[in-house]
Amino acid sequence: MFRTRSRLADGREIIYFDDRRGRVPVPDPRDLPAVEPRCESRRDPLTGEWVTITAHRNTRTFLPPADQCPLCPGGPASEIPDPGYEVVSFENRFPSFSARTPVPARSAGSARPEGSASRGVLDAVDGHELFPRMPGTGRCEVVCFTDDHDATLARLPLSRVRLVIEAWAERTSALSAMPEVEQVFVFENRGVEIGVTLHHPHGQIYGYPFVTPRTARMLERASAHRDATGGELFGDVLAAERAAGSRIVRAGEHWTVFVPAAARWPVEAHVMPHRHVPDLAGLTEDERDELAVLYRDLLRRCDALYGAPLPYVAGWHQAPVGEGRDLLRLHLQLFSIRRAPDKIKYLAGSESGMGAWINDVPPERVAERLRAAG
Amino acid sequence: MFRTRSRLADGREIIYFDDRRGRVPVPDPRDLPAVEPRCESRRDPLTGEWVTITAHRNTRTFLPPADQCPLCPGGPASEIPDPGYEVVSFENRFPSFSARTPVPARSAGSARPEGSASRGVLDAVDGHELFPRMPGTGRCEVVCFTDDHDATLARLPLSRVRLVIEAWAERTSALSAMPEVEQVFVFENRGVEIGVTLHHPHGQIYGYPFVTPRTARMLERASAHRDATGGELFGDVLAAERAAGSRIVRAGEHWTVFVPAAARWPVEAHVMPHRHVPDLAGLTEDERDELAVLYRDLLRRCDALYGAPLPYVAGWHQAPVGEGRDLLRLHLQLFSIRRAPDKIKYLAGSESGMGAWINDVPPERVAERLRAAG
Repeated sequence: MFRTRSRLADGREIIYFDDRRGRVPVPDPRDLPAVEPRCESRRDPLTGEWVTITAHRNTRTFLPPADQCPLCPGGPASEIPDPGYEVVSFENRFPSFSARTPVPARSAGSARPEGSASRGVLDAVDGHELFPRMPGTGRCEVVCFTDDHDATLARLPLSRVRLVIEAWAERTSALSAMPEVEQVFVFENRGVEIGVTLHHPHGQIYGYPFVTPRTARMLERASAHRDATGGELFGDVLAAERAAGSRIVRAGEHWTVFVPAAARWPVEAHVMPHRHVPDLAGLTEDERDELAVLYRDLLRRCDALYGAPLPYVAGWHQAPVGEGRDLLRLHLQLFSIRRAPDKIKYLAGSESGMGAWINDVPPERVAERLRAAG
Repeated sequence: MFRTRSRLADGREIIYFDDRRGRVPVPDPRDLPAVEPRCESRRDPLTGEWVTITAHRNTRTFLPPADQCPLCPGGPASEIPDPGYEVVSFENRFPSFSARTPVPARSAGSARPEGSASRGVLDAVDGHELFPRMPGTGRCEVVCFTDDHDATLARLPLSRVRLVIEAWAERTSALSAMPEVEQVFVFENRGVEIGVTLHHPHGQIYGYPFVTPRTARMLERASAHRDATGGELFGDVLAAERAAGSRIVRAGEHWTVFVPAAARWPVEAHVMPHRHVPDLAGLTEDERDELAVLYRDLLRRCDALYGAPLPYVAGWHQAPVGEGRDLLRLHLQLFSIRRAPDKIKYLAGSESGMGAWINDVPPERVAERLRAAG
């Protein structure tokens, strides 16, 4: 894998990933105004969870016509100056988190806020201690999987999926080294049904300045499990799923693909490594090779479920940068809101209000269908 | 308020609420098969949260034509046999939780599972202790606000909104007394944008057999706050919001309507009583009277925001039946996914995968707009 770094017209970083040596990046010809993100995270006093307010994002690009796609290479509206690329990652122009967010100087000496980045800067909304606030520093990148607008990750050659994994691992390392970043989340939103604004095949990476609520919860559970049993939660869950067998979709030498026993979505699958590894950067070459095969296979099964591209979210749960490296095992969670060929699962009162998921499809049936879709 | 109880053809309970005495329920003329719910809650080993699997619900009624509305009174397809009604609540035909769910006899003597109903019955998926499971016992009701198919709660007379509150309070008491129910959630989902399947103005009530994840989290926070400061979290948050003032929409003698400092939705408002009260059943007559005025006013402001009926979820957070009665204060959380006249906030990777909300609209601006919409 060869990595080539450059800058866009407004100073944002762009990184090309190629199987072959020799890329010379084309300069960005645009006259772009400088990015001025206004990101701010506030802690909800009733739940303790950080919520991020991003006033500048409400005007972001929404489903542009294909000939103005900002992810197609070259051209006046493109974010990628090169006339062709394999895999590329660049700073999001409309970020939820950005190291360019102004940090108030007066707070520079503040104490570390609970659950936030060790280097986070704390003040408070209206100066009230019940409403802690910090600048939404961090990093958001867009990762393009191919320069072919009409492709999908599931239909790319294996070598390209392998290169995407390489890019994910490298960006995980790079973002983990940034002082603002506490946790790196690599994910793909796919389909207009879940609000995707650009059709070009791409994913995203968030470098959060705090540990996210789901991760915090998993760390608590893994810690309690270790205290109670001496065991490693993720390894024990994987062993239990493999022993039960009824929810296994496919297993390799290094990875198992399964529908979790308490799946909360009408389609949900986890991809978990057999070895305890905290993040994508820690995977061996062999593990990356097999992941490319099994992940592409899972995506193809998903698209076969309803005979149409499945709208999905696929997110990599990784250990935070500074804690719980021995507790949280890397795993992919892929899920879809499609519960029938013509029906969507909406998150309404019970899910969005109370956090209590209702799933109309038994996990065992989903596993059976995913096995049959191979 | 006068309450009249009856049964539907398949044995489900129906309760009429009237301002005047004298209702004689009409018998249900239908030949309905008995309800056979298959509800099952499984605890997610990675988060500790209960997820409910309801295989029988995937075939439920979806946006029927207006002349087959099951919530319009009388007629062959109606769930309400009477030719007219004011407010009525009845057991959902497609429940997420039901006391009719078969309970395996062999587990009758099991210990109380963590976070579940004190009378809950525990076994495990595949017999594995990492996958606790219990029958999805509990109760789901549908509450119709009017027999007028084309009305909205916001446009009903004040006396009717007051009667709806009376019905909510009575059903909260009734469901709290059921041995299966650990927590009562009164809510309204409104709008096709959030997946509402029936247009007739109605809400729902869930009697959960466990404490929901959001409630459990709030109880933890309120307990920690009391330990640290001696104060009552909800009262202190309310006082802080009132002192700040910038997010207050409207305040009365007994209630305050405000946008929370860490609002996670593009439109969000909380309605909180000035007195510590655990649930709707505990409200005084004066509090109920003022609530009718302020809640209807809030709904009208919401509909005025974009000059069109706002899709929303409005849910009443109430203390669980058996714990935290002194910790969790009753409050309404109303929120919408509409972030612009033609744009929806979708929950994608960050929210649905990590529980980390990104909100494009500053809470102070939402409060300003709601104030101006009065």
